[in-house]
Amino acid sequence: MANRAKKSQMERVSVPPLSSVAICGGTHGNELTGLYIVREMQKKKIEKVGSVSITTIVTNPRASEAGRRYIEMDLNRCFTDVLLSSPITESTPYELRRAQELNAQLGPKGSTDAVDLLIDLHNTTANMGLCLIFYTLDWITLHIYKYIQNKMSSVPVRVIQLEVPISDAYALDSVGKRGFAIEVGPQPNGVLRADIFNMVKEAVDLTLEWLQEFNSGHTFEGGTVEAYTLVKSVDYPRDSAGKITAAIHQDLQDNDFKLLRSGDPIFLTFAGETLKYEGEDLYPYFVNECAYYEKKIAFHLAMKKTYSFPSICAKKDGETA
Amino acid sequence: MANRAKKSQMERVSVPPLSSVAICGGTHGNELTGLYIVREMQKKKIEKVGSVSITTIVTNPRASEAGRRYIEMDLNRCFTDVLLSSPITESTPYELRRAQELNAQLGPKGSTDAVDLLIDLHNTTANMGLCLIFYTLDWITLHIYKYIQNKMSSVPVRVIQLEVPISDAYALDSVGKRGFAIEVGPQPNGVLRADIFNMVKEAVDLTLEWLQEFNSGHTFEGGTVEAYTLVKSVDYPRDSAGKITAAIHQDLQDNDFKLLRSGDPIFLTFAGETLKYEGEDLYPYFVNECAYYEKKIAFHLAMKKTYSFPSICAKKDGETA
Repeated sequence: MANRAKKSQMERVSVPPLSSVAICGGTHGNELTGLYIVREMQKKKIEKVGSVSITTIVTNPRASEAGRRYIEMDLNRCFTDVLLSSPITESTPYELRRAQELNAQLGPKGSTDAVDLLIDLHNTTANMGLCLIFYTLDWITLHIYKYIQNKMSSVPVRVIQLEVPISDAYALDSVGKRGFAIEVGPQPNGVLRADIFNMVKEAVDLTLEWLQEFNSGHTFEGGTVEAYTLVKSVDYPRDSAGKITAAIHQDLQDNDFKLLRSGDPIFLTFAGETLKYEGEDLYPYFVNECAYYEKKIAFHLAMKKTYSFPSICAKKDGETA
Repeated sequence: MANRAKKSQMERVSVPPLSSVAICGGTHGNELTGLYIVREMQKKKIEKVGSVSITTIVTNPRASEAGRRYIEMDLNRCFTDVLLSSPITESTPYELRRAQELNAQLGPKGSTDAVDLLIDLHNTTANMGLCLIFYTLDWITLHIYKYIQNKMSSVPVRVIQLEVPISDAYALDSVGKRGFAIEVGPQPNGVLRADIFNMVKEAVDLTLEWLQEFNSGHTFEGGTVEAYTLVKSVDYPRDSAGKITAAIHQDLQDNDFKLLRSGDPIFLTFAGETLKYEGEDLYPYFVNECAYYEKKIAFHLAMKKTYSFPSICAKKDGETA
């Protein structure tokens, strides 16, 4: 990808217009921002904005009704090729059935029928500001990111890349031809904050604005982008029964994306001892995310990579790339 | 009470020593600070500190294991006289059975067998700092509050009084001869923050320290205290289906205990409209508490009252009041 980026740095790339977008919320039923943004768009019957048709979906309605992350299994871990093609039986969890329904509606994943762009709205209890999270580095996605980052001043806007083959990509946004999650925090599960509601609404509106400009023939200039790429995850210290024995240290808490160096405090045990980080300098994120206690993740660690991306414009009718 | 306070302002009151304390956590299973403080005390087998015997209890073990506020009903609404004396049948919710067990162990409420002091540890998603919440204004409780407030500099320490007859008092702390909840936030449900863990631990340690000094004959000087007294609750705007149609306005969010005046913004509707407060000047608290969405409370409003309280010391053997 870095090579491709370098090669095309000075070129202008033309890409077919993007005519269909899905905006999804409630994939985790206790992350309220996306849920209420989608419900409001449905209430206003927003189904087309200029040249773009819009599908809005509450993706996990049962979990959203219950105010829980999920009912039987984490919906946002169900979109791998293997799970999407697994046979449905009486014992298939609700979320896996729902994943296959969503894949039929918005995909099928990897097919030409898939929606052009799939945006899934999430919240985190970590102090991560606004992040776009995606699997495949893609010029369109990077241009949208840059557009949002340049226009939003109320919050830091960052990019996180998960380097996973698309067949193993487990998140809903992997079902679209292109897709990303918008992950915003800190917001407690089950709580809706107006400031974060406004941020996410602004990011969605800016994405739709970018798509209008792109589809209408505007050329967006190339540039560079810094992306955080997952290197590894760190679990809490635990006792033999699996119970955590420490909390995230107060020096690390709320300091997502602040470079962590060997010797920096990372945990405070309940007995009062400070535990320190050992290893290469990396950037922590998803620090003290509520839902990750059960996934045995206290925080992720990333390295920062710089990517160049080319100028881009929409391909005109009959034009070939 | 205010009269009693004035009458005894210049007196020295002597009260029997307090020999038994219960420290409770996990009454709401997703409020993690108290749960982990109690577990750590149990691990260290802390059963007596100087002259005070200590009982530590995870009060709702099933909800704590599940990481939920409650299993069938809110345990901290079960301690009224009516509910505590209701017959147990097959359909009695888990929490009501548990409340009667706890009442047998730590009470019975209103009896001479009850524990001298019951402290119940809670968290809120609201930006409330550290609050002591109790029903009955009591010299001992006010002295402990003043002691904690004078010694803790890391967080604002406040008192909230619920003016409810003790028979109708529904919270666990009403089971002790004296009792209060320590309510600390902001902390998301299901998340443990080291800074808040340290605050609550310090407040518990200071309470035990005060009890030692009191029991050993030290006289604590009288003074005055400002307490917030609940006046009324305000619900979210809702549609005909009961769904909320607005979030707490960003100007009110995180501004617990900042005087709310007529005309101040309180809600931002999802359509973007700002709704304003109308009414007498009052102090908001529990602003955007996660668990209160279902209770139809967006925030509480309080008035501030000043109480005087007398110097106090422990009654010596054989002494009468």
